[in-house]
Amino acid sequence: MTNAPEGGGGVLGVVEDAAVVVENGVVAWVGPRGRAPQGAEERFDAEGRALVPGFVDSHAHLVFAGERAREFEARMSGLPYTAGGIRTTVAATRAASDDELRGTLRRLVAEASRSGTTTIECKSGYGLTVEDEARALRLAGEHTSEVTYLGAHVVPPEYADRPDAYVDLVRGPMLEACAPHARWIDVFCERGAFDGDQTREILTAGMARGLVPRVHAGQLGPGPGVAIAVELGAASADHVTHLTDADVDALASGTTVATLLPGAEFSTRSPYPDARRLLDAGVTVALAADCNPGSSYTTNIPFCIAVAVRDMRMTPAEALWAATMGGAKALRRPDIGHLAPGARADMVLLDAPSYIHLAYRPGVPLIAKVWQAGEPVT
Amino acid sequence: MTNAPEGGGGVLGVVEDAAVVVENGVVAWVGPRGRAPQGAEERFDAEGRALVPGFVDSHAHLVFAGERAREFEARMSGLPYTAGGIRTTVAATRAASDDELRGTLRRLVAEASRSGTTTIECKSGYGLTVEDEARALRLAGEHTSEVTYLGAHVVPPEYADRPDAYVDLVRGPMLEACAPHARWIDVFCERGAFDGDQTREILTAGMARGLVPRVHAGQLGPGPGVAIAVELGAASADHVTHLTDADVDALASGTTVATLLPGAEFSTRSPYPDARRLLDAGVTVALAADCNPGSSYTTNIPFCIAVAVRDMRMTPAEALWAATMGGAKALRRPDIGHLAPGARADMVLLDAPSYIHLAYRPGVPLIAKVWQAGEPVT
Ligand SMILES: [Zn+2]
Ligand SMILES: [Zn+2]
Repeated sequence: MTNAPEGGGGVLGVVEDAAVVVENGVVAWVGPRGRAPQGAEERFDAEGRALVPGFVDSHAHLVFAGERAREFEARMSGLPYTAGGIRTTVAATRAASDDELRGTLRRLVAEASRSGTTTIECKSGYGLTVEDEARALRLAGEHTSEVTYLGAHVVPPEYADRPDAYVDLVRGPMLEACAPHARWIDVFCERGAFDGDQTREILTAGMARGLVPRVHAGQLGPGPGVAIAVELGAASADHVTHLTDADVDALASGTTVATLLPGAEFSTRSPYPDARRLLDAGVTVALAADCNPGSSYTTNIPFCIAVAVRDMRMTPAEALWAATMGGAKALRRPDIGHLAPGARADMVLLDAPSYIHLAYRPGVPLIAKVWQAGEPVT
Repeated sequence: MTNAPEGGGGVLGVVEDAAVVVENGVVAWVGPRGRAPQGAEERFDAEGRALVPGFVDSHAHLVFAGERAREFEARMSGLPYTAGGIRTTVAATRAASDDELRGTLRRLVAEASRSGTTTIECKSGYGLTVEDEARALRLAGEHTSEVTYLGAHVVPPEYADRPDAYVDLVRGPMLEACAPHARWIDVFCERGAFDGDQTREILTAGMARGLVPRVHAGQLGPGPGVAIAVELGAASADHVTHLTDADVDALASGTTVATLLPGAEFSTRSPYPDARRLLDAGVTVALAADCNPGSSYTTNIPFCIAVAVRDMRMTPAEALWAATMGGAKALRRPDIGHLAPGARADMVLLDAPSYIHLAYRPGVPLIAKVWQAGEPVT
């Protein structure tokens, strides 16, 4: 069973009893096994198990130090989640050595790979000084080309009294230092973080330096984030837990992907975004894990798929599409998220006969084998 | 970090920087590492990771054939869950060979072990003939001593017109054939399955043959199951999703454990039971996975803990307690579910510094190593 847009099987293009031919790390052919070209150098028999495209996790915060398990425990005893907790991680991250940060980053990227993620985006945002943000991006760049400058994650304590001076730093000297190390620019547009005007200023400055915008929008309440994302042609508006009808219309009429992050709602006991409402309006939906130590400390896309099906009114097929093609669209990457000829051979073999099992067997580690560009991930 | 009732650390008895000494498969000593007795033959360094008791999964249906992924998919597109789907599995199970059933059973028990379950209960209930029920119990007995006779799972199609004749079979010849292979007797007391009078008749017949009762109660709606469970001194009332105040009072005043099965609510999109209400009333709460192909196809207790914390208002500590000591109490097993001296050395090493991570890192496979009676599980 594979995700080939040309095949039958609805939104996923499922091919039953399929074969995939990989050459030089790229999918060369996919179709019914009986018609597969012969003469492969190496063969792998999936023995009836489902093969799906590698997951594309388009939203992650992996450069940090310090876990926040006690804060999580306190929240599960009734305390609310606020953006303020980010500052705890900022202090720990600034104090950490490069190698400490590398250790955590390497551990989380490996954990994500083992659970089927073959492309992962990675943001800065826990440094919040020129030097610490640039460092975060350099370290992220050791693992992925999808690097996002998020100097505008939260206003750091030393700028608490003069947030506009911090915005000037983010779109000025910090951007200069960071732009060479990033592909994307992102802003946490939220009460307690950055307002609409600040968001627009920062994103347009980044665009002028060649970065492509994406926005954290509508996580904790409705706000101007989605409208700005669509207006600026951002690749993605992320979270979008709280949406006005105008936001949905804007997303439906534009090219901005709506990236849903169910791990965040799960871990903050917040209401889930309504994926059905977005899908029915024709919005392109992606699913990502939002791995970070405060509000969603998971790298596990199968878990996100199961929750999206259970709590966000997605079908198993829609959820898998969102975690593969959706993520690829949110990163504007035509080469990943699917297994049509020409795609990078990023493939996940499930310990199950169908992709439905990703939601049907919640919590069960179903990832049997992962290939990245045709090479087995260990 | 270990769960020794004698230590500090609240409900769990957490010991920081602990050591555990195991002799002949039993915990011989547990306490602060600095005070540990010397001279062990073999040593294992947990390197700061948390050690917790093996999970006790007191509710599982593992003897079956045939998966129901398509039914799950249809349900996620809006169809309701009813007890009737069980009959699909009954037909497939009756048609399966012993070795087919053994294959699935072995696979699921191994999967549960790898995710930290060191004791698992197993029910019949997909045979529903004298021969098929006895066969299920014999097969279950190849893997666990916690075997439960559940001839009263649902009325099979051939008795649809005369349910009372089926009840007579269950408490008569079927019981005779099954009792030698089981420790427990269980009834699915629910609209569409067995009513209160039938439940009482079947359980009392089983008790007369030396079996100890447990009851599926209040899964799909309120009913007489909980009251009967407490009245008969059942070890556990399971599901208890729908509870009257009288039910809660009865549980609080009796010895019957309330076993919550969040996997079932997750997979049927049903409202979750309110664990807080039970805990605040003083009821002993257990957590189990309810692995079965229809309504909860998971063996993963860490997943159940994360959902219980997120959606059933349990703290991480309460949820871990429920999945270890709670399960042990539901199975009346003083030797498991904890790591005090004398306990069976069933231990789970987490890839994390604390048990909180079981909920703080949802979906992430955190089970680094499992020991059953002191022996590593592979
Ligand atoms: Zn984020
Ligand atoms: Zn059950």
